Amino acid sequence: MAVNLPVPELHQLHAVSGVTLGVASAGIRKGGRKDILVVALAEGTRVAGVFTQNAFCAAPVQVCRSHLSAASEIRAWVVNTGCANAGTGERGLADAQETTRMLAELLRLQPEQVLPFSTGVILEHLPMEKLRLGIDQACGVLGEASWLDAAQAIMTTDTQPKAASTKVMVSGRPVTITGISKGAGMIRPNMATMLGYVATDAGVSQALLHDLVREAADESFNAITVDGDTSTNDSFVAAATGASGVMFSSAGDPQWPLFRDAFIGVCRQLAQAIVRDGEGATKFITIRVNDAASRDEARQVGYAIAHSPLVKTAFFASDPNLGRILAAIGYSGVPGCDVNKIRVALDDVLVAESGGRAKGYSEADGQRVMQQSEITVTVSLGRGGAQAVVYTCDLSHEYVSINADYRS
Amino acid sequence: MAVNLPVPELHQLHAVSGVTLGVASAGIRKGGRKDILVVALAEGTRVAGVFTQNAFCAAPVQVCRSHLSAASEIRAWVVNTGCANAGTGERGLADAQETTRMLAELLRLQPEQVLPFSTGVILEHLPMEKLRLGIDQACGVLGEASWLDAAQAIMTTDTQPKAASTKVMVSGRPVTITGISKGAGMIRPNMATMLGYVATDAGVSQALLHDLVREAADESFNAITVDGDTSTNDSFVAAATGASGVMFSSAGDPQWPLFRDAFIGVCRQLAQAIVRDGEGATKFITIRVNDAASRDEARQVGYAIAHSPLVKTAFFASDPNLGRILAAIGYSGVPGCDVNKIRVALDDVLVAESGGRAKGYSEADGQRVMQQSEITVTVSLGRGGAQAVVYTCDLSHEYVSINADYRS
Repeated sequence: MAVNLPVPELHQLHAVSGVTLGVASAGIRKGGRKDILVVALAEGTRVAGVFTQNAFCAAPVQVCRSHLSAASEIRAWVVNTGCANAGTGERGLADAQETTRMLAELLRLQPEQVLPFSTGVILEHLPMEKLRLGIDQACGVLGEASWLDAAQAIMTTDTQPKAASTKVMVSGRPVTITGISKGAGMIRPNMATMLGYVATDAGVSQALLHDLVREAADESFNAITVDGDTSTNDSFVAAATGASGVMFSSAGDPQWPLFRDAFIGVCRQLAQAIVRDGEGATKFITIRVNDAASRDEARQVGYAIAHSPLVKTAFFASDPNLGRILAAIGYSGVPGCDVNKIRVALDDVLVAESGGRAKGYSEADGQRVMQQSEITVTVSLGRGGAQAVVYTCDLSHEYVSINADYRS
Repeated sequence: MAVNLPVPELHQLHAVSGVTLGVASAGIRKGGRKDILVVALAEGTRVAGVFTQNAFCAAPVQVCRSHLSAASEIRAWVVNTGCANAGTGERGLADAQETTRMLAELLRLQPEQVLPFSTGVILEHLPMEKLRLGIDQACGVLGEASWLDAAQAIMTTDTQPKAASTKVMVSGRPVTITGISKGAGMIRPNMATMLGYVATDAGVSQALLHDLVREAADESFNAITVDGDTSTNDSFVAAATGASGVMFSSAGDPQWPLFRDAFIGVCRQLAQAIVRDGEGATKFITIRVNDAASRDEARQVGYAIAHSPLVKTAFFASDPNLGRILAAIGYSGVPGCDVNKIRVALDDVLVAESGGRAKGYSEADGQRVMQQSEITVTVSLGRGGAQAVVYTCDLSHEYVSINADYRS
């Protein structure tokens, strides 16, 4: 049961000119579900991406990095669920490369023009024959209107598809930005993300798109955590087809902030959707850390709170157990942290100040906020002017059930 | 249900000459349970301790640090459960000081000769009148044989008392070491521990006892984690009364290693008891990280595995989901980690090598080990000669139940 996350409707997801999508059920995931997505990109499209920092990064991530750093134009993406092709050694790498060859042949591209993505169980090999049939089938149904199908095809333990879409007017022309994401567990993206795909019909130069993807990841996918586990397969890629006729080649363009904000807004929606559908989530928690000496320090405190199983179970219980939040701030490792300067609020209720319970705080006020399905924890460190936001969810019985049963 | 942790029996806990203990039910904890422990130490006893590194350290921890650094001889300890006196500001500090005055008056000591300890709910003030009556009552029943009562009096969410005791012959004289500990949640001691108390009738000079306490903490309480949450109240103190007639004043004493090993053995038993009784624990997990470039690096990898909710739920499910262990090693943050050199074993079963599944590994072998109640994960990093051990438990439904209900 995702937290305040409406299932996207087909008519809300604007097609992106220059991008066609096709899905298939190849039998890699159980239950005959959609498990293959092929995305074809028009000639001239610019692509940029960021990937997991996990040292055990999956074979497809290695191939993505290599293909993106080669000079060739990326023209297609292929995603399978049900098998992560991670921890699979040399054979896994060969399988990921073979996957790009299969799709390249069907779309008359070079293998280096294809990016492969996998998600699912780690340490198992890809079933290559099923994959081949699935890719073939998906290529047969490529269409501009298939964004919802695409969002469904990349789901694993997600309870619902995740997609976001917007249109902005740039110099009198409509520009579309549409994206999909997936992920519910093993979520603590590190300088990268879970699977996230965003496309726009704006034209964006390669260098500018590269910077935009990093900035957007930092503001969205890199600010979420479900369980603190950084996946081996996190990937976030964006495509700019240029089909709208709008072209950006410099961040100095007066229209750029408008487009950039819209783009980041789509990414933030997709990232928050992952937390809202976090494994077993019943609450959506925003942790704002203000007045920090640096952004890194603010994040460190935010993640200490967001990862504490005690804080997460207190949210699940709607229990204003503020001591657990203070303890997490206290062990977050900020050097020379003066607890007397720290203030903590739950929504608009000031709960702690001067190293203890705030004057005028009543348990009833805390209880009222904790019972909401959306809660903002605001921490002021009193050390400087930097801030960061982390989005997370609570820890429920359902989380344990899902992860104790995932493979069985 | 603790994991392979027999309830200590009274006759197994040797009295320590020079140490008397008294307990009381002061009504601070619910249900009329024992909640006050007073320990009186004979003149000439040496005391040393280590405490939490949490910036929000509790008022009694601040008082302990101050009293231990003062020149006066420590002659008594007082512990209450039911209220941690943490996050309680100036008033909390005054209450902790008042607690030492109460006990000092009854035992005819100076307040600086008393160490106060509190454990329980954070952000609530001590009920001073109940405390006064409880301390008075406990002082009326001081006796050498009350170690089991003492272990019971310091319990919070513990399901059973934790104690360990041993005797060693030093130069023909019997020396006794007996200790108690408590803790089940908010367990990730950081250069300190949960509540742990060890006494010996050996004489140990102040400097040597100080070093021994740090070394023992490092090998025992600092190597355990239940949920990664470092408490505000962790404290580990030791007393050496000298009543056995055996005296150590230098680590160069040929008998010192014998005594030191016995002392550390008692501490390790007490620390492991905390993990075996970890909130909701059904499995006791030992994580050995070998061939690391440094001990810190080995610990970092050990804790990454031990704190991963995905790894912990896989242990709960008896599921050999090795990918989750590899992912945790991968994101542990060891710089320049070469996954091709990493080997992972579950007990005697080699499960991963060369960046993937080990040759000859079968799921049935992994399954067999995972079904045990005690499992050792051995990770070889292939980077050097350093090693570390971390003890932890699994993450079960019961953990969520306990922590969602703790205050209600």
